[in-house]
Amino acid sequence: MIYLDHAATTNIYDHVLELYTRSLKEDFANPSSAHALGRKLTEKLKNLRLNFLKELGGKSNDHFYFLSSATEGNNTVIRGINFSEGDAVIYSKADHKSVTENVEKGLSKNIEKIHINFLNENWREELSGTDSIKLIILSLVNNQSGSILKINEIAKELKLLYPKSHIHVDAVQGIGKIKYQVTSDIDSLVLTSHKFGGPKGIAGLFLKQGHKVAPFLIGGGQQDNFRSSTESYPLSLAFHEAFVYSNANTEINFDRIAKLQSHLKSEILKVVPSAIFPFENVSPYITCFIIPKISSDILIRHLESKQVYIASTSACSSKIKGYNSTMDALGIEEKYHKNVLRISMGTLTTEKDVNEFCLIFKVMWNDIAHLVR
Amino acid sequence: MIYLDHAATTNIYDHVLELYTRSLKEDFANPSSAHALGRKLTEKLKNLRLNFLKELGGKSNDHFYFLSSATEGNNTVIRGINFSEGDAVIYSKADHKSVTENVEKGLSKNIEKIHINFLNENWREELSGTDSIKLIILSLVNNQSGSILKINEIAKELKLLYPKSHIHVDAVQGIGKIKYQVTSDIDSLVLTSHKFGGPKGIAGLFLKQGHKVAPFLIGGGQQDNFRSSTESYPLSLAFHEAFVYSNANTEINFDRIAKLQSHLKSEILKVVPSAIFPFENVSPYITCFIIPKISSDILIRHLESKQVYIASTSACSSKIKGYNSTMDALGIEEKYHKNVLRISMGTLTTEKDVNEFCLIFKVMWNDIAHLVR
Repeated sequence: MIYLDHAATTNIYDHVLELYTRSLKEDFANPSSAHALGRKLTEKLKNLRLNFLKELGGKSNDHFYFLSSATEGNNTVIRGINFSEGDAVIYSKADHKSVTENVEKGLSKNIEKIHINFLNENWREELSGTDSIKLIILSLVNNQSGSILKINEIAKELKLLYPKSHIHVDAVQGIGKIKYQVTSDIDSLVLTSHKFGGPKGIAGLFLKQGHKVAPFLIGGGQQDNFRSSTESYPLSLAFHEAFVYSNANTEINFDRIAKLQSHLKSEILKVVPSAIFPFENVSPYITCFIIPKISSDILIRHLESKQVYIASTSACSSKIKGYNSTMDALGIEEKYHKNVLRISMGTLTTEKDVNEFCLIFKVMWNDIAHLVR
Repeated sequence: MIYLDHAATTNIYDHVLELYTRSLKEDFANPSSAHALGRKLTEKLKNLRLNFLKELGGKSNDHFYFLSSATEGNNTVIRGINFSEGDAVIYSKADHKSVTENVEKGLSKNIEKIHINFLNENWREELSGTDSIKLIILSLVNNQSGSILKINEIAKELKLLYPKSHIHVDAVQGIGKIKYQVTSDIDSLVLTSHKFGGPKGIAGLFLKQGHKVAPFLIGGGQQDNFRSSTESYPLSLAFHEAFVYSNANTEINFDRIAKLQSHLKSEILKVVPSAIFPFENVSPYITCFIIPKISSDILIRHLESKQVYIASTSACSSKIKGYNSTMDALGIEEKYHKNVLRISMGTLTTEKDVNEFCLIFKVMWNDIAHLVR
């Protein structure tokens, strides 16, 4: 099997799985229990939180909460801001659906929604006259194009313009792959375990001290009354281990994967000279390209018959056919929306995987090139 | 170690852990991915859902959604109902905090909150004159007292009185321990994996077809657009396995645990004749009692020093000192709130555990009886 859909989700690291399995057996107690077993796990959770804060560039009096998913994190922040009528949100229509759907449909009040494509060099010109910006959402790495935003530079500029705004970072496709730490301009950041070798079902939300985000899940008052639900120490431990391990190896992995991406791109262009790679300054982990005149569905099906797995768009948007708002926001012409492919590598992807992919891709292309109208 | 806090959380079954671990390794793909790996997991998730529906007494066109926790389930239903000003909710102040906090603080509109103690024989007299009841919440087993509600009988009566109401069941402490299936009067039900031998981080929400509950987590549109977030097939599989296994053994376990409870009660009364067991018709898994004049904290600490773990109140309420609204709603006099203990057994609890507990309890009591003022 050649799995090249790591942006959708990635394999759990063996050592993380081992740690998680042992912890599931040993650390089964409820951290909220008043007895020693509970108190011990509460203490351990506190240490995990402090280390997340440290690695992410936060301070020890900032907050770090364990959540079930990045979607929950984006819901928590966007719907937890106390908007007043007439306030505005800055976001990008190219953001993940858990951002765009919440901004566009999740807010009950009449909020101005300002779409800005931060990948456009002239994004400053898109800022409207309003200064009642309450929330700004930035994505570290776009899940479709792989485009990397210079988050901290952009946040600094925006915070000067809108000092009262809350700046939220969706770091899901970046953290664990690209070296990143928050500055004091960043008010919140979401990351999720299953994108960098941890299990699914656990994610994290950084929130700067003094933030004004209201709790989303209400109940037993766990996590300082911010996120109610029984805490899973084993899931949190596995998430933390995957994070620390990934974060420690970002640079060495980045260089290796960048070489593979460069090789991949040149091999694809050799086979299909008409292929278009529309994006620059992208994460080496995500390679988005267009093969004109042939449906990406057909290519995906042909490849999967040879046990090669790639994507066209994000898993969360995979049910959308035809026009795709994310691609539109990224500047991909509508005529190409059905022709987009996304190959995404992980830290476990090897040179052999990429070479085999290129070989199979070539054979497949010879088989189906006649379908290109 | 003698762990008798299974109502807070229980150990994961060995065979469930084994299945989960294997699935974490093998079924790592994102079910939303368009390629064969994703489609295969989507199909498998559908089968798990259908079997949950069948075992819970639902129909194949009812809905079953995977969530992160029972707290999320209660939040989803209570905040997903489209209330109008002046509508009313019936609930009990003895319900879990994720019910009471949401009803009392989570609703933005002016909703009448009607507290009814369904354990009171005369609960019908507590019904107020209003017939604009939009939501009724019933708990199958109370997590403090262990009291079992005759849910289906009560729901039938209430549905006749308020045919337009949505009846929601919090079945967290009942399912997997007590045989229960929904009738057509039940509109939703929440259950959670870690209370019956599955991992933490996964729970389920049954929703009857035609329900009017709005989605809570918004985003990529997973689970028929009702609950966005990347699905974890491994967590869902482990949850399902723990559920099916527990559900198949409810009767044989019930009888065995009931005998242990009876033994436990008589042994405690032998050691502390002044002990009060205020509740009848309780789940054998939960034994709640009062030892007057001595703080439950002291007893819990003494027992934990001998590696015996019990609770005073639910883990989610363990931070509350002094007056306890759950105990109040259950009719426990305030002077006793600090003297309540909760021993909760699980299906893995053995006769040996209970006998050893009784022995240690007796020794401890001899050590500390002089503290009783």
